[in-house]
Amino acid sequence: MPLPTAPATAAFEGGCAFADGAYVPLSEAKISLFDWGFTRSDATYDVVSVWQGAFFRLDDHLTRFFASLDKMRLQIPHTRAELREILHGCVRAGGLQDAYVAMVCTRGVPPRGARDPRLAQNRFYAYAVPFVWIASREKQREGIDLHISLRQRIAPASVDPTVKNYHWIDLVQSLFDAYDRGRDTSCVVDADGHVAEGPGFNVFMVKDGTVHTAASGVLEGVSRRTAIELCERLGLPLRIAPVPVEAMRAADEVFLTSTGGGVLPIAKLDGVPLPQFPGPVTSRLIDAYWAMHDEAAYRDPVDYRA
Amino acid sequence: MPLPTAPATAAFEGGCAFADGAYVPLSEAKISLFDWGFTRSDATYDVVSVWQGAFFRLDDHLTRFFASLDKMRLQIPHTRAELREILHGCVRAGGLQDAYVAMVCTRGVPPRGARDPRLAQNRFYAYAVPFVWIASREKQREGIDLHISLRQRIAPASVDPTVKNYHWIDLVQSLFDAYDRGRDTSCVVDADGHVAEGPGFNVFMVKDGTVHTAASGVLEGVSRRTAIELCERLGLPLRIAPVPVEAMRAADEVFLTSTGGGVLPIAKLDGVPLPQFPGPVTSRLIDAYWAMHDEAAYRDPVDYRA
Ligand SMILES: Cc1ncc(COP(=O)(O)O)c(C=O)c1O
Ligand SMILES: Cc1ncc(COP(=O)(O)O)c(C=O)c1O
Repeated sequence: MPLPTAPATAAFEGGCAFADGAYVPLSEAKISLFDWGFTRSDATYDVVSVWQGAFFRLDDHLTRFFASLDKMRLQIPHTRAELREILHGCVRAGGLQDAYVAMVCTRGVPPRGARDPRLAQNRFYAYAVPFVWIASREKQREGIDLHISLRQRIAPASVDPTVKNYHWIDLVQSLFDAYDRGRDTSCVVDADGHVAEGPGFNVFMVKDGTVHTAASGVLEGVSRRTAIELCERLGLPLRIAPVPVEAMRAADEVFLTSTGGGVLPIAKLDGVPLPQFPGPVTSRLIDAYWAMHDEAAYRDPVDYRA
Repeated sequence: MPLPTAPATAAFEGGCAFADGAYVPLSEAKISLFDWGFTRSDATYDVVSVWQGAFFRLDDHLTRFFASLDKMRLQIPHTRAELREILHGCVRAGGLQDAYVAMVCTRGVPPRGARDPRLAQNRFYAYAVPFVWIASREKQREGIDLHISLRQRIAPASVDPTVKNYHWIDLVQSLFDAYDRGRDTSCVVDADGHVAEGPGFNVFMVKDGTVHTAASGVLEGVSRRTAIELCERLGLPLRIAPVPVEAMRAADEVFLTSTGGGVLPIAKLDGVPLPQFPGPVTSRLIDAYWAMHDEAAYRDPVDYRA
């Protein structure tokens, strides 16, 4: 399908969406109440960041999104090149230098009365809004207090966690648990009591110089992968294996990874200060994470003049 | 908040929605792409049927909906009496004698950039559309072939199954499994390999005259409850306990229960005909299910003249 012309820079204020084949202001970005993407959360998505005028690791996000579409048996009416163009168009039209950019595919609406997902026309949406932090920079400096909830992350035997999905009741309820206890955010565990992930991030810990993170049962975060690659570059010992809650409570350092802020240091676990905040390993990874944004291989600059 | 006047009978063709405090045609029933009800499936809902001009067990559905709201920490801006009035208004405006009537509450949209669900204004939606069958009456007569998928229903440790929710990726993927194998619909299992539920229904089996259904890990279906109460009324032995897949494959009769059709007979399991179809116990329950619709205690007639 031919793409509409991308709007001018800052054509829409504060962000831009792409819905039903057209660029629209955010207030017009809506989906039908009957779309299975809503009534069955039968959808997949991806989120990539734009920082100082350039996408970061856009290729990796596009690859993950197309893999998620395949696994969900969903299809979008755009090629990879067109998708890239649409995302650039949203950022430009929003006039955003630092942005949170989402691409979404829903099952769509099957014919009236039908309950067969094969009969629905899948729908594609995208949008760019100002950059969203998992925690504000002030909160990061002040120190994030992470609650380890004993709620279980939806198991891989139910929903493939490598498909980025909107099944978040467990994560949102764990946030309420955290707020009830006066904490700032939360993570959940797997059925064996190992640390899984949180609402929008993967979780890492550092003990005696070795960096640890969960091997499976979590989203394969692009920022998780960046942190893993940076450990290799920096020669930091790394262990990708299940992390028991008790091991994390005994950690020297804990950090989160997310497109919503990269590497984010944790100050406390359930109110108990960690020995090191921000820890030396975490600090090196934070610096390396932002430095990586200048490497040509990971940058895809937005052309705001077009 | 004061309710708008309910529209005239058949004011809207083929159905009516209630969104953002107003009755609207179905085509205008939309939610924001930024509502957490979509981006986190952070929502709850209920579905009640209208049959031959009267709601069936509306009180039980309202009770379950308000219980789900509490468990999810969601709130709607309407009393129980107002909610009843809105649902009646949707059915009347749609001019529907047999209807599928939904009430939905979503978390809403938190302020830009915020990731705190407590800051969102919850949203309420309702709609009435023509009655939706889990399987058409022809298919029911012809014989439904049920696939028992080994995918696991999302566990209670992750999402409380007594809260009616839109976390259905497991169920939708099991439907694809069923279609791939030439079956008509599907059910999934729990982590211990017991039969759980399917996309929109609970599952029952009959063996040597005793009716069996899962005790937990499933939605407490109102139709499941009706079937249980009818077993008691009819003096049918009943066992509410985990049902192993192998026990179900050895059943005399299998049936589903759903607001989308009441008691629905199953003819085959994964292509293998059940010994009895439609079985004598299932047939008695089907008759009793529809007869119950005439009992005043369960009927709430729609006033189409208003
Ligand atoms: C459940 C979950 N885990 C982990 C992440 C982190 O992934 P990424 O680094 O690709 O942002 C996200 C991002 O939204 C997520 O939703
Ligand atoms: C997952 C699930 N189980 C069971 C049911 C049956 O519940 P009820 O009899 O209340 O319609 C439904 C109804 O939609 C459902 O979604």
